[in-house]
Order: sequence, then C-alpha cells, then structure tokens
Amino acid sequence: MNSDLGNCTHPFLDEDGDKLREECGVFGAINAADATAVTALGLHALQHRGQEAAGIIAWDGAEFRARRGLGHVAENFSSSEAIAELPGHMAAGHVRYSTTGGAGLRNVQPLYADLASGGFAVAHNGNISNAGTLRAELVQRGAIFQSTSDTEVIIHLVATSRYPTIMDRLIDALRLLEGAYALIVMTPEGMIACRDPLGIRPLVMGKIGDATLFASESVAFDVVGAEMVREVEPGELIRVDFDGNVDSLHPFGNHSPRPCIFEHVYFSRPDSFFAGRSVYEARKAIGVELARENPIKADLVVPVPDSGVPAAIGYAQEAGIPFELGIIRSHYVGRTFIQPSDGARHAGVKRKHNANRSLVEGKRIVLIDDSIVRGTTSMQIVEMMRDAGAKEVHFRVASPPTAHSCFYGVDTPERSKLLAARMDVEPMREFIKADSLAFVSIDGLYRAVGEGPRNASCPQFCDACFTGDYPTSLTDLSRREDKQKQLALPVDKVA
Amino acid sequence: MNSDLGNCTHPFLDEDGDKLREECGVFGAINAADATAVTALGLHALQHRGQEAAGIIAWDGAEFRARRGLGHVAENFSSSEAIAELPGHMAAGHVRYSTTGGAGLRNVQPLYADLASGGFAVAHNGNISNAGTLRAELVQRGAIFQSTSDTEVIIHLVATSRYPTIMDRLIDALRLLEGAYALIVMTPEGMIACRDPLGIRPLVMGKIGDATLFASESVAFDVVGAEMVREVEPGELIRVDFDGNVDSLHPFGNHSPRPCIFEHVYFSRPDSFFAGRSVYEARKAIGVELARENPIKADLVVPVPDSGVPAAIGYAQEAGIPFELGIIRSHYVGRTFIQPSDGARHAGVKRKHNANRSLVEGKRIVLIDDSIVRGTTSMQIVEMMRDAGAKEVHFRVASPPTAHSCFYGVDTPERSKLLAARMDVEPMREFIKADSLAFVSIDGLYRAVGEGPRNASCPQFCDACFTGDYPTSLTDLSRREDKQKQLALPVDKVA
Amino acid sequence: MNSDLGNCTHPFLDEDGDKLREECGVFGAINAADATAVTALGLHALQHRGQEAAGIIAWDGAEFRARRGLGHVAENFSSSEAIAELPGHMAAGHVRYSTTGGAGLRNVQPLYADLASGGFAVAHNGNISNAGTLRAELVQRGAIFQSTSDTEVIIHLVATSRYPTIMDRLIDALRLLEGAYALIVMTPEGMIACRDPLGIRPLVMGKIGDATLFASESVAFDVVGAEMVREVEPGELIRVDFDGNVDSLHPFGNHSPRPCIFEHVYFSRPDSFFAGRSVYEARKAIGVELARENPIKADLVVPVPDSGVPAAIGYAQEAGIPFELGIIRSHYVGRTFIQPSDGARHAGVKRKHNANRSLVEGKRIVLIDDSIVRGTTSMQIVEMMRDAGAKEVHFRVASPPTAHSCFYGVDTPERSKLLAARMDVEPMREFIKADSLAFVSIDGLYRAVGEGPRNASCPQFCDACFTGDYPTSLTDLSRREDKQKQLALPVDKVA
Amino acid sequence: MNSDLGNCTHPFLDEDGDKLREECGVFGAINAADATAVTALGLHALQHRGQEAAGIIAWDGAEFRARRGLGHVAENFSSSEAIAELPGHMAAGHVRYSTTGGAGLRNVQPLYADLASGGFAVAHNGNISNAGTLRAELVQRGAIFQSTSDTEVIIHLVATSRYPTIMDRLIDALRLLEGAYALIVMTPEGMIACRDPLGIRPLVMGKIGDATLFASESVAFDVVGAEMVREVEPGELIRVDFDGNVDSLHPFGNHSPRPCIFEHVYFSRPDSFFAGRSVYEARKAIGVELARENPIKADLVVPVPDSGVPAAIGYAQEAGIPFELGIIRSHYVGRTFIQPSDGARHAGVKRKHNANRSLVEGKRIVLIDDSIVRGTTSMQIVEMMRDAGAKEVHFRVASPPTAHSCFYGVDTPERSKLLAARMDVEPMREFIKADSLAFVSIDGLYRAVGEGPRNASCPQFCDACFTGDYPTSLTDLSRREDKQKQLALPVDKVA
Repeated sequence: MNSDLGNCTHPFLDEDGDKLREECGVFGAINAADATAVTALGLHALQHRGQEAAGIIAWDGAEFRARRGLGHVAENFSSSEAIAELPGHMAAGHVRYSTTGGAGLRNVQPLYADLASGGFAVAHNGNISNAGTLRAELVQRGAIFQSTSDTEVIIHLVATSRYPTIMDRLIDALRLLEGAYALIVMTPEGMIACRDPLGIRPLVMGKIGDATLFASESVAFDVVGAEMVREVEPGELIRVDFDGNVDSLHPFGNHSPRPCIFEHVYFSRPDSFFAGRSVYEARKAIGVELARENPIKADLVVPVPDSGVPAAIGYAQEAGIPFELGIIRSHYVGRTFIQPSDGARHAGVKRKHNANRSLVEGKRIVLIDDSIVRGTTSMQIVEMMRDAGAKEVHFRVASPPTAHSCFYGVDTPERSKLLAARMDVEPMREFIKADSLAFVSIDGLYRAVGEGPRNASCPQFCDACFTGDYPTSLTDLSRREDKQKQLALPVDKVA
Repeated sequence: MNSDLGNCTHPFLDEDGDKLREECGVFGAINAADATAVTALGLHALQHRGQEAAGIIAWDGAEFRARRGLGHVAENFSSSEAIAELPGHMAAGHVRYSTTGGAGLRNVQPLYADLASGGFAVAHNGNISNAGTLRAELVQRGAIFQSTSDTEVIIHLVATSRYPTIMDRLIDALRLLEGAYALIVMTPEGMIACRDPLGIRPLVMGKIGDATLFASESVAFDVVGAEMVREVEPGELIRVDFDGNVDSLHPFGNHSPRPCIFEHVYFSRPDSFFAGRSVYEARKAIGVELARENPIKADLVVPVPDSGVPAAIGYAQEAGIPFELGIIRSHYVGRTFIQPSDGARHAGVKRKHNANRSLVEGKRIVLIDDSIVRGTTSMQIVEMMRDAGAKEVHFRVASPPTAHSCFYGVDTPERSKLLAARMDVEPMREFIKADSLAFVSIDGLYRAVGEGPRNASCPQFCDACFTGDYPTSLTDLSRREDKQKQLALPVDKVA
Repeated sequence: MNSDLGNCTHPFLDEDGDKLREECGVFGAINAADATAVTALGLHALQHRGQEAAGIIAWDGAEFRARRGLGHVAENFSSSEAIAELPGHMAAGHVRYSTTGGAGLRNVQPLYADLASGGFAVAHNGNISNAGTLRAELVQRGAIFQSTSDTEVIIHLVATSRYPTIMDRLIDALRLLEGAYALIVMTPEGMIACRDPLGIRPLVMGKIGDATLFASESVAFDVVGAEMVREVEPGELIRVDFDGNVDSLHPFGNHSPRPCIFEHVYFSRPDSFFAGRSVYEARKAIGVELARENPIKADLVVPVPDSGVPAAIGYAQEAGIPFELGIIRSHYVGRTFIQPSDGARHAGVKRKHNANRSLVEGKRIVLIDDSIVRGTTSMQIVEMMRDAGAKEVHFRVASPPTAHSCFYGVDTPERSKLLAARMDVEPMREFIKADSLAFVSIDGLYRAVGEGPRNASCPQFCDACFTGDYPTSLTDLSRREDKQKQLALPVDKVA
Repeated sequence: MNSDLGNCTHPFLDEDGDKLREECGVFGAINAADATAVTALGLHALQHRGQEAAGIIAWDGAEFRARRGLGHVAENFSSSEAIAELPGHMAAGHVRYSTTGGAGLRNVQPLYADLASGGFAVAHNGNISNAGTLRAELVQRGAIFQSTSDTEVIIHLVATSRYPTIMDRLIDALRLLEGAYALIVMTPEGMIACRDPLGIRPLVMGKIGDATLFASESVAFDVVGAEMVREVEPGELIRVDFDGNVDSLHPFGNHSPRPCIFEHVYFSRPDSFFAGRSVYEARKAIGVELARENPIKADLVVPVPDSGVPAAIGYAQEAGIPFELGIIRSHYVGRTFIQPSDGARHAGVKRKHNANRSLVEGKRIVLIDDSIVRGTTSMQIVEMMRDAGAKEVHFRVASPPTAHSCFYGVDTPERSKLLAARMDVEPMREFIKADSLAFVSIDGLYRAVGEGPRNASCPQFCDACFTGDYPTSLTDLSRREDKQKQLALPVDKVA
C-alpha cells in the first residue's frame, strides 16, 4: 500500500534548502531513574539530525509503552503528561526526517513488536542497502509489514531467526544486513547498542550516575549532564542489563572502519566529538586548509551562516583577513511563503539570509560555505552580495565537490541534480557567478580531520559522496532500473 | 472580565529567557498588487519583535478582512489559502507577544472597528502610559471594550471625537495619548503612519514599484526587495492615498527626539538601520568601547550567542584577541523540558547554549553579552564555562546596567527582579561568579551609537532603562498602589 | 466587516432540512451551589432550540467568566474541566443557530461587557426588528460593535443610557426595542429575566432548593430535577438577588399577549408546557382536529418522524385507523454525504427516513407531518412511500399553510421559497404528488391549543407565519429594498 | 504492548447505557462507479451497529488506499476530499465499537496487509473465540502483530498458509477459526464475502446496476437505492470478480444455521429484513405475544423509546389499550454531564428520557422495553414514571431474561453484572420496583420471529444469551482463569 517497498529511507530531494540532511538521531538510557525525561532531553540535543518526527519507547519492568509524533521533540515530549505516560528505568528515542502527513506516522521510530521472546524495540540511524531484497523474501514467507521502514526488516529477521536467545537472533539478523546502521535495541533483559562493521554512522556511549547512555553524538551527553565514555566501535554490540553489567561483543570480525566524513563537514554539531576529534576544531582546520590551498586577496571573510562559521573563523585567522557577519541569518525559517508578484528576486533566500549592507558595500568578500549541493542557493547568495554592493565575491567551500548520492542514511538529491556531478569547477563558478570558486581538496579534508592524506587503497573514512567509492554493496540499487541514473556519469559532465 | 484593565501591555516576566523583549512589530503596504503577500513576508522579517501572535487586515476597495492567530507569522500566513482570504491593494500586519491561550486572541492586532465614517484598522507598537485612565473615562461615557489592549483606547477616542474628518479625529485622539507609539492606520481613504512626538518606537518608510511601505525596521524592506526611503519622523503623520499621493503632517509641534537606545543594544536585527546608523556597526562599536574602557588579558573572546556576536567581533578586533565560538547555540529552543532527577545542573540553559569544551579548556575567556537582566542566565553561563575547564572568565556587557523598568512597550521584569536595581557591579560579579565584570559606560554607549557623549540636560535617546530618566509622564503608574515597587530604590541596593 | 449590519438573526435558508428552526434557547440559575453544572444540563435539554453553538457565563461574586463554543452543549460543557472553569452561584447560558466557521464565534451568546456600573451579561432568544436602525444611531454616536448580533444593540443601549441604576438603564433600553425577546441578564447584583410586551418568545421560571431558574421551556426544569413555578409574563421583568429576594416589574403597561403558536406546532419539546398547555396534548389535539376536518379512508396512519408522531397518534385514535411506523428515522443524521453517481434517487432523504416496506406495501397511507415549508422533503417522502408499494398516500399537515416569513427569531426561507406563498392547496398537492392533501384550519389549530376559535380582531397568538398578521412594526425591514420580496404576494400565486 | 492479546473484542461494560451493543457492521461494493461513495452511504445506514470508529479501503486497479478514523461515518467520510482520496470500483468499509483514544486507531478496520500474493484487505463482524490461542501459535512462529484485533489473526493465517491460491489460503485460514464471523475480503482479483458455518452474524447481498454489494443489514441497500438479492448463506463464500462473475462455495459442509436471535430483538434496524423476516414485524409480533402471555389492566401502553416502540405498538393493538408517548426521548444523547450537587435524582437517565407528565399522571402504565441487562436503567425509568404521577407501572420485556454473556461479537457486561444471572423474575421486579414484571417466553419469542416453538435439540437460532446454549467451542475462554466468573452460576442466584 503506497508501496515504495524496501527503500523507505531512500535519499530524496531537499525542498527547503540546499543541504544534505542527516536522516536520524538515536538516544537510549538504561538504569536511569527518569529514563524518559533523560531521553527526551538527549533527543532534543540531537534535533538537528531529524526534525520531522520523534518517538520514545520506555520499559518499566512490566510493559513497553510508546509515544510517537510528527514534529519536533519539544512538541511531543516537553509536557509532564507526555513524560509520565512513559514510566520506567529504560527508554530509547529517535528523531527522523520523513515525508509529512498522517500516513508517515507508522514509520516513526522506535519500532516495536511483541515477539515470542517478549517485547522488542529498536531505534535505527542509517540505511540498509539490501532492505528491499530482504523484505521481499520475508513477505514471501508470510511476514506482514506495517511500515515501509527498513528498520522493520530487522525486526522480522529477529522474529523469524531460529536461534534460541534474543542476542543470537539479533546477531543472526545483523549478519544478513548490508549498509550502514547504528541501533539501540530494548528487550525485557536490557539494552543493546550496535554499529555496523564499518562504523559508517556514529554512536557513542556515556554515563551519568548508575545510568548508561547511548547517543548519535556526544553533545547529547553534555545537555543531560552526562560524560562521554567512548565510541561504540564499528561492528561492536554492547549489552547492558538491569544490574548494570556491560559486556561487549564483536561477532563480525575485523574490518577497517569507514566512518562518514560528512559528519565532520556538516551533520554533527560543532560541540560534538566524532572519530576522536572535536568537530569545531576539524571545521576550523578545514578553513585553514582552504586558506592555504586557495589564497586570495580580500577585505572580509564572511561565513554563510551558521554552518560556514567555524571554517570561516579558521580561514580568517590563517589568512589574516577580518571575520565579519556579512550575512545575517533569520532564526525563524521554516515554511515557504507566497511570493508577491511585485516582490524582489530571491525572497526565499532572503527570508533566511540577508546581506549586511553597511558591511559589504564596496568590499572584496571571501564567502565560506560548507558544501555545494545543487548550487541554486549558492548562486542566490553570491547575487545577494553583489546587490548589496560587494566589489568581488570569492566562494570557498569547506568540502570537496559533492558528486555522488549517499545510500547510507543521508538525504541527497538524485545524482543528476548534484551540481558537481554535472560539471567541473570552472563551469560551477560560472553557474554561481562568483569571481572565483575553490573547494578544499580531498587530502586537505583528510588532513583537517586529523588523518591526512587519504589512503586511496583503504580510505580512513566513507567519502563516497565525494569519490563515489562506496564501501558496501548496494544490492537494492543494483536491482533497480534507474540504477544508471543514480550512479552513471551524466552526459553533460565536462571532460 | 479577567479585568487587567488599561495596562494590557504592562511589562511581564520573561519566563523563557533572561532578556528584555520588544513587544511588537508592524508592517503596512499600500498600492501593492499583492498587499497581503508583501505584508506577510515583511512581518516574517520582523518576527523577532513578537513571536506569540500575528495578524493582518487587508482592504480590497470594498471590504476589510482580517486574519489573526496565535503563533508565528509562518504558521498563520504562509499558505496560499490564508493569503487569498485577504485580497486587496492595502494591508497592514502586526506581530506581538501576549499571554498564551485562546483568551489572548481578542488582543491580537491589528484591531478593527466599523466607525460611522467607515472601517478603521490600526496596528500599534508601543505602550500608552495613560491608557488605563483614558479607558476608565471612556467606559464612564458608555464605551464598551472588547479587548484589554491599549490600542482599543485609540479606536474609541477616534470613534467619539467630535471632529468631522478621520484625519482630524485621529489627531484629536493622539493628542490625548501619553507614552510611546508607532501606528499604521487604515481607512477606506488610505493608510496613515505615525510616530509619537519623541519617536520612542521606530518606524520607517519604504518603496517598491508603486507601493509605499511602512515597517518597524528596515530589514523588512530588504526581505521583500524594497528600498528604504526614510524614517517616519517623531511626531509625524504620513498619509498615503490610493492615487499614490503622500503628504506629511506635524501637528504636535517640535520636540527633541528620544528614540529607544535599546533598539541598538538588542531589539533590532543587526542588518537593520536605526536612527541613521547600521545596528551591526553600532554593536561592533560598543564592543570596541568595551575593550577600550575595560581591557583584560585573555586567550579567547567568546560571544554569548547570538546577540553578543557583533560586540564580540568588535571587542576581539580592538583587543587583538581571537574571536571563537566557545558557546554553541541550539537552533531548537522553545518549550521547557521536564528536568530529570539525575540530570546535571542547568539543563535549561544547556538546551540553548552548550560549552565548546575542546576550545575552552584551560583558557582565559572574555565573555560578551548584550545585557544582564535578572542575572540568572549569566550566572549559569559562567558556571558552564568553568565546568568546561575555563581558567578565567571575564564578563563584559555591551550595555550599561539595566536598573529600571520600561513603560514604553518593552517587556521588563518588575524592578525588584532586575539585578542592577538590587546591587552594584561588584556584588553583581559575585552573584554571577565571574573573575571580572564590566559594563560599557552610558557615554561609551552614546559614542558607539554615534551621538556621544550623552547630553544630560537633553538626552539624545530614551535610556530610561539605564538611567530612570523617563521622557514622558506615567499617568497610569502614578495611580497604582504598587508604584513604589516599580520605581523606588530597592532596600537591598548596595549603598 | 462582513457587514450584514443590523439583522444578524435574519431568517436564512435551512440547508439541512425542510423545517422552520427556532433560533435560540436560554437558561439561567441563581443561588445554585453548582450554577454552571445546572445550566449546562438545562441547556442540554434545550438543545433542539439551537444546535450550532453554546455558551455559558458564570459569576462567582468577584468575576464573570465565559466559555463559548461552536457545536452542541455536550461538546462544550460536559467535561469537569469546563464546568470548573466557571465557578459561582449564578450562571446563564445560551444555545443558538449560526453560520458555521470561526468568524461566527464572536456572535455566540451570552454576550458580555464591562460597563461603568460593572459587568453585564445577557442571553437573548428572539429578534429585535429595529436592531439595524438602532445600531446605525449608536455607531453614529461613537459606539463600536464587535458582533453582528442584535443582542449587542441591547448592551450598547444600556451602556449609554443616562439613568442611574442598572434596572432603569435596562428598562430604558428595552423601551427602544421592537420585536420579540426573552432575556436573561446578569449583573453583580443578581439576575433579571424579562420577556417582550407581547410575550412572543417563551420564558418560564422554576425552582430547586434555594435556587431560582429561568428557561425557554419547562422541560429544562424536568431534566435538572426542578419544578416549574410559572411563566414569566409578557412585558414582565423578574429580578432575583443573592439573598433570594424576587420582585416583579411591569414597566410597559398592559398588552394582550401574542405568544408564538408555532411553539405548539413544532419548536417546543412535546414534554414541555407552553402557554398553559401540554405541548404533547396540543399536538394530539391538532391530530384530532385534522381527522375531524379532513376524514379519509385508509389502512394506516404513518407519522413523518419524529415531529409528526403526537399528531399522528391523535389522528389515529380519532379516526380509528392503526398507528404504525411506516417510516423509520435514522438517529445519525447530520452532514450531507457525497451522492454516488449510480445511487438511487433521494439518498439525502433516505439517510434520515426510510420506508418500512413490509408495512407499507399495498396499503392506503395517511401521512402526518407538522408543517410544509418548501415542500421538497414532503415530495420525496410521498415518492418514497409509493416506491415502497403504498397504494394511496394522503398527506395531512398539523398546521395551516406556512405562507409568511417570521421576523421574531425563527429561521424561515425567504418568502418566495415558501410553497404556501407560491400556490394554493391543490397545486401544492400536485407538487408533492399526494393523492390528497389537507391542512388543519387556523381555527382548528386555535381550538387544539385550547383557545379557539381565533379572535380575528385581537388574536390570542402570534400566527404571522400563517396569516401575515405581524403584531409589531418591522422597522428594519421597511427600510430595506427587498421589502417587496419579503412581504409581497408572489406573482405566481394561484388566484 | 498494552497486551490484551487475543481477545480484543471481548465483551465490555456498556458505560453509556444499559443495552447490549452490536460490535460491528460491514459493507462492500464491487463494480461500482463510485465504490467509496456508495460504501460511505451504506456504512452510514449501519451506524447503529458501531459508533466509535469507521474505515474504508478502496482499490482502483493499481493500489489499495485506506482511510480510518475514530467517530461516526459522517465525521470521517462525508467530505468530497475524503471520498476523492479513495478512488476505484471496489471498496469495503467497517463501523465498530472500540475503546476511545489514539491507541485504538490501529484496531480500526478494515485491516490491510501486503501479502506475497498482493494486497489483502478484510472487514470483519463477529468474534473469533479461539483467536488468542491462534495468535500465540503465530507469534511463536515469528509473526508480528500490530493490532490487538482478532481480525489480524485471519490475515496472518492467510499469509502463512501453504496453499497456492488466495481462495485456498482463505479457506485454509477459516477452517482454523471458531466462533462467529461475517467477512468482506478484497484482493486485486475481486471481493469475497463469507459467513461462519452457523451464520451467527448477518450478511446480505445486494445489487444496483452492475455493482454487487454486501452488507450486514438490508437497510443499507435501501439507503443507497439498491435492491436486496439474498442472504449470504451460513458457511458460504461468494466471490465476485471485475468482470461481474459471481460464484459461490460451501467448503465447510452442511450445518444447521444458528443466526443470532438478538438481531430481531434489538440490534438490527426495524426496517431491515433478517433471517427472512421483517424486523419491525417480528418486534410487533413479540409485543403481541407479550400481551397474550402476560395480560394486565392498564390505561396506557408506553414504550421505552426508541427500541421498545414496535413491540409496544403490537402490545397496544393486541391488548386494546391506547399507545402513547409517555416517555420523551432526547435526540442529543451522548457524553455524560457533571451532576450538580443540588440536582435531582437520575439526571443521567433524564437527559435521555423524560416523563410526559400530562399524560402519565394518575394513570396505570404498561412499560415496554426490549430487554433488561443490568437493570439500573429500568429501575430509574420506573421511578421516573412514579415521580410523574403514574398510579401503577407494569414492566413488560420483549425478550427472555438475558442471563448469559455473548462471545460472538456483542458487548455484554461480565456475567455477574447481568441482573437475570443474579436473580429470578420476582426479585428482579423488586429490584426495579415495578408493580409487575414479565418477559416474553423463549417459545413466544421463537413464535414471534416465525419459527414457532424452540427446537431444544437443534435450536433454530443462537440464543445463548438467554439459554447459555453456546453453539461453538469457546477455546480462549476455557484457557482463562476467570472462566468461572464468565460462565458459572453466580452464588447469589435465587434458587
């Protein structure tokens, strides 16, 4: 029914902006006096990872109770009534992007099922790249799906596994998966956190008092007042029971990790730590690399707010050019407005970003942004700078050209919409009408995140969106007729 | 009924933050093809001036139509249905703070009445300080009030004026008012914009094509693609008819203007121009003054985001200390969450602001904020810096001590809650637990906004919140029994 | 604004059925421990008098509090929260018809105003036939109206009266009114109930314990367990204070009463008493008159449910023909459904009324209905009987032909839509396709309600809808251009 | 989760009244141009069978689309938008009782699943008395349930059946069921209607143009303008494809039918035909039997409206005593109101039923009701008659004593709450305080419905609620610990 089977988290077009979007954030707490209240606060700190729906499931020793809703965490979980509905010492939650509308509610996580072994809840960040194939097999055997989420595939695999213990059934299920996942699972025995063998999506462990916490980013621990213990390792399952016992399994053998490098570029909050490094520091370092690789004479360094700010500070410090807020960002973005017929150009961009005219007029500007996706926003911002009187506009991008779709849980436009998939740097400069355009190099990026340079035979990160080097098979995609469209080099690519 | 008569916009406690809050923004458009769409966009750009309700009234040559709602402009006016409900070439809108709940809806502006002369709509930013007294007189004569808004007093004064023309009736009404107001009035003849004789609240005029626009701030013109023409002068009435004729009246004689200096400090958007000066430049200049008046040795200049950023950039440039984002601000503030029993201290502050630990650890920090109101947030932010490992925390404030309530349309806590009304600077430093604390001087502030120093016999701005020097009578207040509480020097004031 | 000034309760077309509709019901309670709970129950018993909105205002000795909502009493006043919002020992409520939609809410009664003398609340059943004229005069003098309700005219007249006491101001206001009204007024001194000098609309007084009650119909007293004391007399004001003192005034002199005879025919519940007689008995007596005046041979007497049932029982008993439910009424009427393209004729009628085929087939039927308004439903019901196999269908109507609009608080279609205004009885029979058609005579009706025959020089009832003999001036109507349309004899009237 | 597994439609207490309640109604249409519009109208005519939720699923040749909601059919399916959402030539719908609240929504039917064979939708009226047992087995094999509905058991049995065709899979599933069911199934091949082998729950087939319809009651065909073809036979499956082919299967062999006799007593609308007889005629005939079996001298026969009306008409005609509306029923029942402290007794009953005092006073009354369940309402109605002045009150019941719970899809209180399970007739009379009390005999009932006395060895109907003679096993119940409570003779039963 509405049967986009098996690829529910397939990348889709970002209507509201010109950014890639992380699709999910997860948070879990066990042995916490107020597990749901802690989880609600933690999820709120992960709101930037998914703004369209939120859910929490809690276990009170006797029953699992769920509450899910479209909208922000605060809309669904800030009332004392909402928290009181979900009593217990263990809870897990999820924020996600999804299509709007009532129908979407059944896809809101965490998902839950009554298995023969008892209740089973799971919150998932990532994308299973063979979910459609697995789903078709399960349906063939009589399984009935209620959502279009790839997460439900995991539950059915656990439900139909022939192993006796829930831990063995879970490992049995995970062995069949391909792609990226960071999971928080709850059963009546306790909580299990796990990460795919390559560690593509992030997952960290924290502690406060007797409670053990898991979260997509360390910032969630800051907000709830907990301390970070360590990252969950790629391929690791960590099990915590109600006596506070914590044990770790690595059932999938050793793999070289490939964490998503775009977490550093854009997804994670700057006050999080990822892959052992402060995200803010990494972004500043990218700015430094940019300034070194592509120096230019200018009067002001201006970030495209807010994501361009740390790189702009790094660039300004390295280049010795003043950092200034030449673009002011509105805090009240959101819905699109009706464009008046006699309104000026680009009201859509101006609702979000406005030129600080008194500053920009007559100046040579270095604009710093984190990435260029479709290029339309970049073009409008350059034009806005010129309308405000800028003499020169030099565009610097704190990531390499984004030329490939992501299939690991990140919203990307289909490949033909990616500016860098369609043209080289010079045509891109012409498209956005900048005086100059430069991207940080892939090796510059690796240096900035502390791993430099990229090890081509065994890259230290997943950087498929820049390189097309996908670290796993893409089974579902390979069965689709539009595979060509997603992966092929577009015809208008400049040789 | 719920009879807080006559002082409906009386300052109230800011529950969600520790800031003064502008109470309103207004926008109007006449001779515009899509007047309502322009007004919706313009109001959206003024959203920071009032986030709890929004309204628009439009005139299509035959009928006035209104739409008002609690919530943001985008929630009420982004759909094409909403815009289509309000056809016509003239429209005016309003954003405001108000108490939540259904009852509040009748106070949402613009207000409207069918007068004998025809329809009359008004949007008001400010506060009439003798509204309660005037209202009591009107009720005595048989007037029936439907709202608790002081704006309704203006309408009743116009309705009962004995002058023949609507312009004379309006001037007759305004003569009776005391306090601060910036009004946009609509009648079947056209639009009238006016500003109180001292020009306490801002109002600017703009132009796009054949349309004439009015707005609280110039940023609204940027967003709709219009250009600013000039400020409406203090005591001026500007009338625009449907043939595009514009004429100006100054019926109240000459007064020295006293625009609100806090618009520069905090209320206006940094990309607006106010009293002839770029707000961003003014704030940077305050930072420069601060650095000169109160130098300190430190490793980093850290703004309390976002309002402290321009002053921090000015301070950093003047002091030669690196500007860094030592505090990361969440974009998803709003409702308060339930505090978990085992959560850390200050989860409320941390939901909004989180220390950037990798940056702060072991450093001497200069924190820059725009103002200190009750001081509780400042205390928590200092503590958060120390928890993140800061070696020294020096607090610098980009305004003088806020020691007096505002009665001109700004939310201020009652006077006994203002930290600066209760104690001098050194006890304030102890209260917020900073290593040092300094405020910009009143003359430094005047210099920064380009007028300095302050002319004590005839100040160039309204600065009553800093000096207690109120430029008008406060008739309603003088009749209230709690006048002492509002104006008197608190007993615990350090001598 | 949406300015159908001065005739807000003007008769409008009944979309959902083919009945006249009472426009309002009122209920009040003073010196009752739970005044609001009593009022909610009492209003619920009057729900048939107005189903589109409900409101209650209560006084607790210090403050008036209001709650109003679109929809039924049960939707707005059945929760304990709703009742708890309105504490106090005095309350009054109102049910009404109104156009749907949010805009209508400001017309929902009781209305309230803060007058110089204190709070003033009023609930009104009726229609002031010079409200538009009075309103225009009040606006000319500076009054500002918030609703389009004629009730607000009463409040403004009280507010601007120059008499000193609230009682004198109310009498001063009522003297200016023309038309029909039954009012329940609340002030801080107590409750005042009054009825227009002709007593067109009903109002009764009841008692339970120390509490005094007023209601549109006696059935409300049954439901709350109270007993009826007496009718409020035409032209009487009854004042009840908080010490339980009750006094009565007759400030308007003596008039012959003219209560609305249609209350007996259709509006009132059959278990109410009106004008000294049981409504059920009156309706049965009309059925008896019908059987005597227009005998016919038939097998079954079938009521059009539910309003035709008492007259049908009377007819059946008098005629000695079995009473049977040949039409079954659905309890779930309401919204209109989409008509399927392949559906049968008259699905709209069939949703409400379905033929009881096993009973009707092959039989001669006497159908009894209370009235014929536009005739469309009557036509469909006759056809439904024939489709179900009826051999003969004889239509008998328990009222004379409805040939004139009501201007006293009853919804009637404009005159040209009234079947009896357009044609005589024989063409009406042809129109509805019955084998015979007869109406009770006007004298038969008067006999049935116990007063007969009609005293032509001074009729005992208002029967203007049958006779066109309006007992008051119709000032607003006489100023309207469509007066001809409302009162004139239509051109297609059969001579 | 909220795991009342396997007995979701278990009988529960009727809070709002003292009646048994049918739990469901179903309607389906195939080869209809506007299948959804027809289904909405048809469901509306079945609204009395389930008032708390409604759902429709439609198939347009490519996709199944569903819409379900709490509340009445009209609230969910009267808008053109709702109908347009569900295009296609085949649709089926369902009305049901359920507990209120959002959680209940997932139990709203029709249910749907994507099976390997394609989409599968089912609407079910009845109760599977071994659903809990079957569900436990399915979960053990890895099935994941999303609802607590017994209907989902049917879907999982079909999904996991090893037969190749959908028809064989459905028959395979039905063979495992025990209890009562009337099903409408939709697949991409067409519609299948079926009824359990004993035909406990009703299901009829109709026709309009090219469309074939199925419904719980024939009244639904009247309302949509269709004609009834015949009943679906007990144990029959009727399959209709999109070419209009209709074929019939009887895979379960021959059984003597046992349709639910309570459909005649109360559930079905009087204008429906059930088991070959007009329900209205059957009810009148019960009244005739009552008058013969239990004659009494009285002045009036008064029905407890509305369900007692046909039996009262029959009684009155047989006994020669006038039929009168001595009790007036409100059309606006629904939510419970807050009882005022000074209100009279029995406001709850009086909101629904009020004595017609002018009629009752001083009279000997025969009250006719359809059944006595818990007896509380009966007691209050007798008392209301006495309060209104009745001299004698004789209670006559149009069914035998209801002494046993139903497990076939009807809400009944738990057995200990049934008055007739706790005591004999004379103590019941004392309990309700009537002057006399009599029930129709079981043989009288059988005579009235046209089957002449009950065949004790092979009863012609399911009459378990009167006799305790359950026609199927009750597997789930026999596994429950409270089996005693449900079936045993209570200890306070009078010997």
